[in-house]
Amino acid sequence: MTDLLARTADLVAIPSESHQEAALADHVEQRLNGAGGLSVERVGDNVVARTDLGRDHRLVVAGHLDTVPSNDNAQPRIDGDVLWGLGAADMKGGLAVMLELATTLADPAIDVTWVFYTAEEVAAEHNGLGHLFAQRPDLVAGDAAILGEPTDAALEVGCQGSMRVQITFRGARAHTARPWMGRNAIQRAGRLLAALDDYQERRPVIDGCEFREALQAVFVEGGVAANVVPDRAVVMLNHRFAPDHTPDQARDHVASVAGPYLAEGDEFEVLDVAGPAPPGLAHPLLASLRNRNGMEVRAKLGWTDVSRFAAAGIPAVNFGPGDSTLAHNKDERVERRSLDEVHHALAELLRLGP
Amino acid sequence: MTDLLARTADLVAIPSESHQEAALADHVEQRLNGAGGLSVERVGDNVVARTDLGRDHRLVVAGHLDTVPSNDNAQPRIDGDVLWGLGAADMKGGLAVMLELATTLADPAIDVTWVFYTAEEVAAEHNGLGHLFAQRPDLVAGDAAILGEPTDAALEVGCQGSMRVQITFRGARAHTARPWMGRNAIQRAGRLLAALDDYQERRPVIDGCEFREALQAVFVEGGVAANVVPDRAVVMLNHRFAPDHTPDQARDHVASVAGPYLAEGDEFEVLDVAGPAPPGLAHPLLASLRNRNGMEVRAKLGWTDVSRFAAAGIPAVNFGPGDSTLAHNKDERVERRSLDEVHHALAELLRLGP
Repeated sequence: MTDLLARTADLVAIPSESHQEAALADHVEQRLNGAGGLSVERVGDNVVARTDLGRDHRLVVAGHLDTVPSNDNAQPRIDGDVLWGLGAADMKGGLAVMLELATTLADPAIDVTWVFYTAEEVAAEHNGLGHLFAQRPDLVAGDAAILGEPTDAALEVGCQGSMRVQITFRGARAHTARPWMGRNAIQRAGRLLAALDDYQERRPVIDGCEFREALQAVFVEGGVAANVVPDRAVVMLNHRFAPDHTPDQARDHVASVAGPYLAEGDEFEVLDVAGPAPPGLAHPLLASLRNRNGMEVRAKLGWTDVSRFAAAGIPAVNFGPGDSTLAHNKDERVERRSLDEVHHALAELLRLGP
Repeated sequence: MTDLLARTADLVAIPSESHQEAALADHVEQRLNGAGGLSVERVGDNVVARTDLGRDHRLVVAGHLDTVPSNDNAQPRIDGDVLWGLGAADMKGGLAVMLELATTLADPAIDVTWVFYTAEEVAAEHNGLGHLFAQRPDLVAGDAAILGEPTDAALEVGCQGSMRVQITFRGARAHTARPWMGRNAIQRAGRLLAALDDYQERRPVIDGCEFREALQAVFVEGGVAANVVPDRAVVMLNHRFAPDHTPDQARDHVASVAGPYLAEGDEFEVLDVAGPAPPGLAHPLLASLRNRNGMEVRAKLGWTDVSRFAAAGIPAVNFGPGDSTLAHNKDERVERRSLDEVHHALAELLRLGP
């Protein structure tokens, strides 16, 4: 059996900060081309390798090539059964498993598409998987998808949507010695902020997985001068919503929370929204992944690229080695056990099919 | 009787935006020197003229030379009994009355000190009256003082203090998909802001005058990123406090209002404080000004330079022509009646004494 910890260290040793993935893409492309039996295409620094065996099912397995900037942890270091270094968990461990399977599994029971993509760690507009869905949807099509983000070999299913809302509270200026001549917009905003601090989130259970929503104030700004009752305050909210809500329902929910504190002249604006993804476990490929391994299943509370597959009608889950809470952390690391567990489960799925 | 409306127009015609009072100071100095019987001193562009008749009482009458910047109203315009123009109310009407009295009243019953000072409309550090108290307290000493700010010939007595307090709320960062791992500092601040919106101010009656305090949020700021639970929010408060409270008591009051919403690690900082002034009507000179004229007496809610006299132990009131609500306004104006009423009351006080 290949030493996946060492293979992951090899990948960590190739720097691939977002927008600088070319060297790692070269490495990946070369290894995939060398494996045989795969048709390999490169789109920018995205690399896609596909089997074409005429199987009944096609599984897409995707992982991002890029890392966040180094945090004094660019050099990989193996200590026993643990590899330390930038990207060890997020997600060069996952890439190592993908490359190992892509280059060794000769006769899978299902067709597989391996997607190695750029710029997951930066603004959504740069996301390589997004570019592929926009420019080459044929390359990323499939019946179900697995995203190799770090879940420590558990199944993290679906993902919650994310919406940013900006609310502008209006007031009327006055001298602070006579505030009753005006209306304090900052204090009006305060009533909403206080209500948010008491917010009781929904925890819907979907396909047996409990999601947990959130609604948080992430920015606030207001003020004119130290002796002026302020006539404007701006609050930005971030709402995370479970996949049983559409973006429209999520907007209505935020509006219903804010409504009691708004008045004529105030503004309520949805700045952007990233849709949620349902758990997707109903698909036979993903159900069999869970059932064969009896693995822990958790709802994914953050937003991940599984949502891009869901938006294209492809059920997708997060499943990869490494602890996501260590991602972007100076102490980022991955354990051999986690790599081996993910490798074992995916290899079995590819060998046996649904 | 001199046409005070025309005399005020003459002064409006001499531009004297803050920091550019030299031309008006020249004019004032020249007129005072020409009057005889006054010892005139100039300190920068501040001009002080004093009688020295050995009277039992000395009254200080003070007014600022400067105006705010022009608002398309630099040219004086007389229409019937109304003068329109920059500074007509704030406070060249008051200066016209002062100059008229200083240059015509030959044998007053009390000694008088006429103070024409700079830079009242800008930051306190530039205030000419403040400079005189610091550098030449002998020049501005007296038993009581009248500040000729626009009160429309009513007595506005005392002034409220003003304090700025900055409160920094702390929290703990977390991903907005898992806010329960952190603590939202903006929402914590919201609880205080909401409480301020319900604030019930004190309305103490002092020497028969009702003051009315205020506590307002004037600035708020916080936020890290759209997907991060913010760990810091800063609120600035402006507290206006009645003259029965010392600055220490005012600070304690603000602290008691904020206290229930603060936690360990938060910061409460008094940025600055300008002390209040008591009504001062107990002094015989000021009492007689009120009693002879049966004039309306109001508590001064804002902060004015009477506080500088109060800090030096000199009882002081605001009393001048013009409507303060028109100050700094494009439609600034003063009426002949208001000028004549103030002139009459002050002339009588100077002629008769207490």
